[in-house]
Amino acid sequence: MTEIKSETSQMPHVLIIGGGFAGLHCAMKLADAPVRVTLADRHNYHLFQPLLYQVATAVLSPADIAAPIRRVLRHQQNVRVVLARLLGVDLENKLARFPRGDVSYDYLVLASGATHSYFGKEEWANLAPGLKTVDDALEIRRRVLLAYEAAEWEADPAARQAKLTFVVVGGGPTGVEMAGALKEIASQTIPKDFRHIDTTTAQVILVEAGPRLLAALPEPLGQRALKDLQQMGVQVRLNSLVTDVREGEVSIGADLLPAENIIWAAGVRGSEVAESLGCELDPQGRVPVAADLSLPGHPEVFVVGDLAHVEDAATGQLVPGVAPAAIQMGQHVAKLIKQERAAGKPLEPRSPFRYRDKGGMATIGRNRAVAHIGGRHFSGFLAWTIWSLVHIIPLIDFRSKLSVIFSWFWSYFSLSKSARLITGRPKLKVKTALGVVSGSEEQKR
Amino acid sequence: MTEIKSETSQMPHVLIIGGGFAGLHCAMKLADAPVRVTLADRHNYHLFQPLLYQVATAVLSPADIAAPIRRVLRHQQNVRVVLARLLGVDLENKLARFPRGDVSYDYLVLASGATHSYFGKEEWANLAPGLKTVDDALEIRRRVLLAYEAAEWEADPAARQAKLTFVVVGGGPTGVEMAGALKEIASQTIPKDFRHIDTTTAQVILVEAGPRLLAALPEPLGQRALKDLQQMGVQVRLNSLVTDVREGEVSIGADLLPAENIIWAAGVRGSEVAESLGCELDPQGRVPVAADLSLPGHPEVFVVGDLAHVEDAATGQLVPGVAPAAIQMGQHVAKLIKQERAAGKPLEPRSPFRYRDKGGMATIGRNRAVAHIGGRHFSGFLAWTIWSLVHIIPLIDFRSKLSVIFSWFWSYFSLSKSARLITGRPKLKVKTALGVVSGSEEQKR
Repeated sequence: MTEIKSETSQMPHVLIIGGGFAGLHCAMKLADAPVRVTLADRHNYHLFQPLLYQVATAVLSPADIAAPIRRVLRHQQNVRVVLARLLGVDLENKLARFPRGDVSYDYLVLASGATHSYFGKEEWANLAPGLKTVDDALEIRRRVLLAYEAAEWEADPAARQAKLTFVVVGGGPTGVEMAGALKEIASQTIPKDFRHIDTTTAQVILVEAGPRLLAALPEPLGQRALKDLQQMGVQVRLNSLVTDVREGEVSIGADLLPAENIIWAAGVRGSEVAESLGCELDPQGRVPVAADLSLPGHPEVFVVGDLAHVEDAATGQLVPGVAPAAIQMGQHVAKLIKQERAAGKPLEPRSPFRYRDKGGMATIGRNRAVAHIGGRHFSGFLAWTIWSLVHIIPLIDFRSKLSVIFSWFWSYFSLSKSARLITGRPKLKVKTALGVVSGSEEQKR
Repeated sequence: MTEIKSETSQMPHVLIIGGGFAGLHCAMKLADAPVRVTLADRHNYHLFQPLLYQVATAVLSPADIAAPIRRVLRHQQNVRVVLARLLGVDLENKLARFPRGDVSYDYLVLASGATHSYFGKEEWANLAPGLKTVDDALEIRRRVLLAYEAAEWEADPAARQAKLTFVVVGGGPTGVEMAGALKEIASQTIPKDFRHIDTTTAQVILVEAGPRLLAALPEPLGQRALKDLQQMGVQVRLNSLVTDVREGEVSIGADLLPAENIIWAAGVRGSEVAESLGCELDPQGRVPVAADLSLPGHPEVFVVGDLAHVEDAATGQLVPGVAPAAIQMGQHVAKLIKQERAAGKPLEPRSPFRYRDKGGMATIGRNRAVAHIGGRHFSGFLAWTIWSLVHIIPLIDFRSKLSVIFSWFWSYFSLSKSARLITGRPKLKVKTALGVVSGSEEQKR
C-alpha cells in the first residue's frame, strides 16, 4: 500500500485541517518543501466565500465559485487530499483524531475557519440561516424564492407582507451585500414574473447593533453604503439589536416585526475543533496564538485564518477575519516550516506574522460599491468596477473566472438572475402556494 | 383581491398540471387564446431533462438546464404560475385538489410526467437512485464523487474495488449516456487528482434486460452504441436482469457483484396522480387516452406527455415517452381548446393526435453518439455534433444556451468537469475517507 510506504517515509508530515484560503495557500506554498502534506476538509471543494452571497441571491451557481480541492492541488506531488472531519487533537501525542482513526503529524496547521454565532441563541439557527457554506447559500436561495411563491397566493394582506419582509441581521460586508441583492431581486429581477403581488413592495430591513455599517472600513464608506442602501429602498436600522427570533416574526429592540425571512450575517465563532485544544479561547471562540501563529507551548501546532486570534506584530491590532489575512497567515506558516526544514532544527525566535492590509470593500448593488485601498476611498461605479475585478482575479481557476464574468455581464444587462431554482430538501418546511411544500418532494410521491 | 376577480371572470379556466415539455408548450400555445391558464408544478423550474445526466456527471450546473417557469411565461398575460402539488382530481365536479384547497377548471391538462419504477421493489430506491429531477441528479453526483473519496482511503483491495464499481441499470438513452459519462470521469477527468487509487481501474457496468441497447432506435445504432461503449471500457451485459439490490452489492441474474454505486435508468411509471382518476391504467401506470388525448368519457380532461398512453392515429404504434412527443401533445391539446373556443361549442369529432417522429439519438462519449433522423443513421463524430446541436437549440433561454455551450467547450478541450461538488444532505449516509461523512455536516458542528 502506498499508504504504508508514505507513513514510513522519513519526510516530516504536515497535516493541514481545512481547505479554505488559509489552508489551501499554506499547502500550495509548501509545494517545493521536503515535507509530506495532508490536507483534510469536510467538503471536497475550496469555496470562494466572498462571492457566496451571489449564490444565495441566485446570480451564480455553486460550481462557479467552488473548485474541488483535489483538482486545485492535482499537480502538487507532495500533498494528498482527504475528505474527513477532524474530531479533535491529542497535542501530547501529536495525533489528530478522525472518525476512522488517528493520524500522526509533525506539524499541525489548523485552518478550519469560523461558523455562525447566534450569541448563545443557537435555537435561532433554523429560523435565521447564516451564510458560510454552499449548502447555507442554497438554503437561503430556496427560502427567498419560496417566499415570493407563498406571497403570490396569500390572500391575507398582513400575512402576505410578512412573507415579503426580509430581515438581514448584521451590517458587515455580508449583510450589506445580501440586503442590496435582495432589494434588487424584488425591484428589478422579478416584478414581471408575478401576477398577484407587487414584488417591489417587498421590504428589506438591515439590522446592525452598532452605530454604523461596515465597521471594518473607514467611517465615510459606511455612511456612503448607508446612503446607497437607503436610496435603493433598504430600511437600515442602526443601534438595533435583534432580541428574539420566532417563526414568522422577529423582535428588533422593543419592536415586534412580522417577517418570514431572516438571514443571519451577524456573528461568527471559531470552529468547534478549537475547544479540543484545551486552551483558553477568546470570546468568539478563536484561538489566541503567539506572534508566529503557533499555539503557545506547542511550536509544532499553528492556527491560521478565521480561527486564529492574533495581533499584528507591527500595529498591535487584531488581524481581521478576511480572505487576504487568511492567505497571508497560511503562507507565513508555510514559510516558517520551510525555514525550519532548511535549517534542520527549530528556529528560535521565529519571525512574527505581519498583516499587510490591502484595504477592504463591499458591493451594494448594480454600479454601487465602496472600497478602501491604500488609504484612498472609492464609491459608486468606480468602486463597483474595482470590486468586480478584485473578486474575479483570485478565483481559483480560469473556468470559474470566465463563468462568473459571463454571469455578471448577463445579470447586469438583462437584470435577471439565472440560478433561480428551488432545489434540495429544506431544513425547515415552508408554508407556501396551495399548501406546505418543500423544495423537492419526489420522496413523497 | 386579484384572485377573486379572476375567479369570477367569464373566460374558461384551463388548469395545466406540470411544467415539463408537454405542460409548458401547451401553456405557451394558449397565449393568444381567450382562456385563463393556470400552470401548477411541484417545482418552480422547467427542466430540460435530456441533459440531466450531465448534471449527474458534473459537467453542467442545475441552473444551466433549468429555468423558472414564471420567468419563461412572464410576458404571457393570460397565464398564472403556481408552485403546488396536485393531490387528486374530482372529475365529477371538475375540481383539482391541492393541499390548500380545491381549484375548479373548465379544461384540465394533466402533464405530470413519469417517475422511476423499480418494478415493485421500491425498497431499492435509496440504494439505486434514478434520474428524473434536479435533486436526483445532485444526489447521483454526490454519490459518484464520494465513491472515489472513499476508495482513496480504503486499504482493503476488495472493498476498494466495490467502491470503484458503478452499475447502471437500463440500456436506454439515459443508461447509455450515464455509463459513457461515468467511464469518462474515471479514465479522463480525475486520474491525476488521486494519489493512492488508479481511477482508470474503476468498473462501469451497464445492465440491460433486453437483447440490445437503445431499443427505441434502429438495430444498427444499438450495435454501434454497444461497440463504442465496449471500446471505452464499459462492460455491457445484455439479456441480464438485476434480481436484487442490497447495500454494497447487486445481483445480476445469478451473479453477485460487490458494487457500491448503482444507478437506476430502467423503468418508469406514470406519476401518482393518474391513480386518482379512477380509470384503468396501463402496466406502466400511464393513462390510456382517446385519439384526441382526452380521457374517455371526459372530453374536458386531457392527458399529455409521459403520463399518456396513446397510440399514434396514423401508425397505431404507442407514442414514445420522449420530449418531442410531449411537446407535440401539449401543442395538440392547446390547438383543440382554441378550436373549441373559436367554435363556441364542443367539436365532434376532434382531430386525433398524430406523432411526427423526427428520429432519436443518444450520446455515448466524447466524439461518440448515434442518431437516427429522417430514416438515416449517423454515428461517431458527426452524430455527436448533431446531438450537441439538437440539444442546444431547444434550451429554453439564450442564457442557458451560452452557458451550456461554454461548459461543453471547456469540458471538451480541458477534459475536466467543472461541477465536481459534493453538496447537500444525502438521502443515504456514505462511508468514506476517515469515517462516515455526508455531503455537508454543518448541522453537526
